[in-house]
Amino acid sequence: MIAAELVATGTELLIGRTVNTHAQRLGRALSPLGIALERETTLRDDRPAIAAAVRAALTRSQVVFVTGGLGPTCDDLTREALADALGRKIVRDTAALSRIRARCVRLGQSMTDSRARQADILEGAAALSNSVGAAPGQRIELGGGRVLLVLPGPPREFEAILAEHVLPWLRGHLHAPVAPERILMVCGLGESDVIERFAAAGFDPAPLDLAYCAGPGQLEVRLTGKPGEESVVTSAAARALAVLGDHVYAESREDLVAAVGRRLEARGATVATAESCTGGLVAQVLTSVPGSSAWYRGSIVAYANDAKTSLLGVPADLIAAHGAVSEPVARAMAEGARRALGTDFALATTGVAGPDGATPEKPVGLVWWALADAKGTVARTRRFPGDRDLIRRWTAQYALDLLRRRLDGTA
Amino acid sequence: MIAAELVATGTELLIGRTVNTHAQRLGRALSPLGIALERETTLRDDRPAIAAAVRAALTRSQVVFVTGGLGPTCDDLTREALADALGRKIVRDTAALSRIRARCVRLGQSMTDSRARQADILEGAAALSNSVGAAPGQRIELGGGRVLLVLPGPPREFEAILAEHVLPWLRGHLHAPVAPERILMVCGLGESDVIERFAAAGFDPAPLDLAYCAGPGQLEVRLTGKPGEESVVTSAAARALAVLGDHVYAESREDLVAAVGRRLEARGATVATAESCTGGLVAQVLTSVPGSSAWYRGSIVAYANDAKTSLLGVPADLIAAHGAVSEPVARAMAEGARRALGTDFALATTGVAGPDGATPEKPVGLVWWALADAKGTVARTRRFPGDRDLIRRWTAQYALDLLRRRLDGTA
Repeated sequence: MIAAELVATGTELLIGRTVNTHAQRLGRALSPLGIALERETTLRDDRPAIAAAVRAALTRSQVVFVTGGLGPTCDDLTREALADALGRKIVRDTAALSRIRARCVRLGQSMTDSRARQADILEGAAALSNSVGAAPGQRIELGGGRVLLVLPGPPREFEAILAEHVLPWLRGHLHAPVAPERILMVCGLGESDVIERFAAAGFDPAPLDLAYCAGPGQLEVRLTGKPGEESVVTSAAARALAVLGDHVYAESREDLVAAVGRRLEARGATVATAESCTGGLVAQVLTSVPGSSAWYRGSIVAYANDAKTSLLGVPADLIAAHGAVSEPVARAMAEGARRALGTDFALATTGVAGPDGATPEKPVGLVWWALADAKGTVARTRRFPGDRDLIRRWTAQYALDLLRRRLDGTA
Repeated sequence: MIAAELVATGTELLIGRTVNTHAQRLGRALSPLGIALERETTLRDDRPAIAAAVRAALTRSQVVFVTGGLGPTCDDLTREALADALGRKIVRDTAALSRIRARCVRLGQSMTDSRARQADILEGAAALSNSVGAAPGQRIELGGGRVLLVLPGPPREFEAILAEHVLPWLRGHLHAPVAPERILMVCGLGESDVIERFAAAGFDPAPLDLAYCAGPGQLEVRLTGKPGEESVVTSAAARALAVLGDHVYAESREDLVAAVGRRLEARGATVATAESCTGGLVAQVLTSVPGSSAWYRGSIVAYANDAKTSLLGVPADLIAAHGAVSEPVARAMAEGARRALGTDFALATTGVAGPDGATPEKPVGLVWWALADAKGTVARTRRFPGDRDLIRRWTAQYALDLLRRRLDGTA
C-alpha cells in the first residue's frame, strides 16, 4: 500500500460549524487503488501552521492531500501556506481566470480582485478545473514520486475535482497492487442482522476482509481480498448473496433510489407519492435522480389532516376512527395519490416523526407506509429508532424498498 | 483563549467507514468556555504513531483530548500508547471493574479478560464513569496546568462522558477569558458580495477577526474580538448589520428555515407550497423543523405538467404559451397552492435543475419562484450555479427567503 495523508484546513471545522467528511470520502476512494490514508490533520486558517503541517506530511507520505482555503476571502490562506512550505512562487493561471470570468458573466457577478485571486496556483502546479465552482484544484508533482493534491473545501467542489481529475490521475500514475472487492447493497437489515444471518448459514468470510457502511435504510456490505484473490472474493460474494436473498437491491455501490429509478425506467412505469410524516422527503429523494421526470409525476404532501381529505380523498371518518397514523389511512393515501396523479404505482407514508405528537399507543418512530398499484395495495409498519430526521430518512428508504420489492416481484 | 487539540484514533475513521464528528462536537462545546480547538489529528490504531502524536500535542496545547481505542479488542491500543507517551504504568481501576462486571450481568454477557481490560487506566488518572458503555474515560492532570482527557470513540459514549464529567470539570477548573463574538446570518449575498459591500461602505472590520461559513443560500458572517473587546465587537456588528440591511435574517446562528418558522409561529400564519423543480425539497426543509405542523399545511409537488393543471389549476394554455419555467406559471402555481390548501401564504418553484431539459432561452439553473398571499403575488427569478442538487437547494433557500422578507415587510 502507498501511504497518503490529508491536511484539512478551515476554522469552521474546529469551532463546531461543519463536520469534516473529506477523510471518509478519501478513505473510501483510495483503498481500492491500493493507497492507504494513514493520517488526517485538521487546522485552522493559520498560514504558518498549515505550511508546517504540509511539510511534515510530505516527510511521511507519498501522496498528500490539502483541502480548503482556496476561496476568495482573506481567511483563505492555503495558496500562500503552500508557497511557504514548498518555497515556490504563486502564479495566476490564465485558463482558470477565463473560467472564473465566464462564471461571473453567467451568474451576473462583477469580476473583483478577490474573485480573480481564486485563479492563483503554485508555480509548476497543474490546475485541475472546477466544474461546479470557481477555484481550481492543483496537482504538484515533487521529487521522489511524491505528489501534493490541493482541493477546495466545499464538499461538492472537492468531490467534483476528486472524481474528474484526481482519481483518474492516481489510477493512471500510481501502480499499487489492487485488492479485489465485491459489494452488496442491502435494505431492511442492519449490520447485526447480516452477521447473525451469515453465522446461522455457516458462512464465514475469513480470511477475506468484511466491512460494513451503514446509512439509514441502506447498508453496504464489502468483501475485500488480497491482490490476486479475485476468485476467492467472487465465490464468497455469491455465497453472501444467497444468504441475504431479496434484501440485496444492487451488486455495486448504488443508492436505493437509483436502483428504484433504474427499475422504473426499464419498465416504463410511473410513480407518485402521498406524504405525511416524511413531509416531501420521498418526493425529494426520488427527484434527486437526474431524469426522474421520465417516471415520477408528483407528490401530495398532506401534512394537515384536512389536506389528506381534500387532496387525497381520505374519508374524514376513517381518520377519526383510526387516527392519521394507521394502516387504513396509509392505504387510502396511496390509493388517493395514484388516482390524483394517474400513475402505475403510488407510495404513501404516515407516522410519528416526533419529538411531539406521540401517544401511548402511537410512540415516536411508529410509521405506516403503503404502496398502491393495479394489483391492489400493500401496507407495512415499523417503529424506527432515532430522532426526527433519522425517522423520516428511515421511512423514506423503507417506502422506496417496498416499491423496489414490488418491481422485483417479491412484495 | 486556552489552546486545545484532539487526537482521534481509529482505523475506521480513515478507510471510509465512519465520519468523525468529535471535532465538531468539541469545537462547539469548548468555544463558550474560552477554549479554542486548534488542531485535530486522526490516526489509525497504531501504538507508536498515537504515542508520538499525543506527545507532540502536549508540547503545543494545554488541553489535549484523545478519543477511541478504549474497547476490548486487540486493535484498541490507546491505553498502551498513552503509557508509552507519558512513561506511566497501567493500573486496573476497581470501581470501573465492578461497573463492567455489573454491566455483563445485566446484558447476560460473560466476564472475559478482554472485557476486564476496559477497566485499565493510567496510574494517577481519574476514571470518568461511562453511563452508557463499558470503558471509563480518563482525566490525567500533568505539570504546568496541562490536562489530558481520554474518551471512548463511539459517539454516544463520547458524548455522555463529555457532558457528565469533562465539561463540568473544565468549567470549574479552567478560567479562560472568552472572546466576544457576533454573528449575522445572511441570505441573498455570497462571501464576495459581502466583502464588496463592506468595502463600498468603507467598513473595515480589522483588527477584529472576520470569518465566513457559506451554505447554499445562507451565509454566516462572524466577527470575533479579543477578550475584553466586547464593545468594539458590538459596534462593528451594528455597522455590518446596517451595511447588509435586510439581507440579514438572524443575529445568532440559525438556519433560514428556523428563522422563517419562528416568524410564522409568532404571527399565527400558515403556509403551503407548490413545487416543480425542487421536487418536495421546500416541503421537506419546512417540515424538518419540529413543531412545523403548527404553520405548515402541505405541498403539491407537480412534477409533470398535467399535474400542475389538474392539482394546482394552472391553465394548460398558460403552460403552452410561456413554458412550465416562467413567471406566469410560477405565479399561478403559488395561487393554486394557496387555494387548494387554504393557507395565508403559498410558495411556488419552477426551474431547470438539469442536467437535462435546458433550452437556449432556458438554461440549466434558471428558476422562477413566487409567493402568494392576501395582498397579491410576487415572483422572482435567478440563474443558479452548480449541479442539480445545488440548484435545487439554492432555489429552496431563496423561496424561503422571499417568504421571510414578506413576513418582515421588505418584499
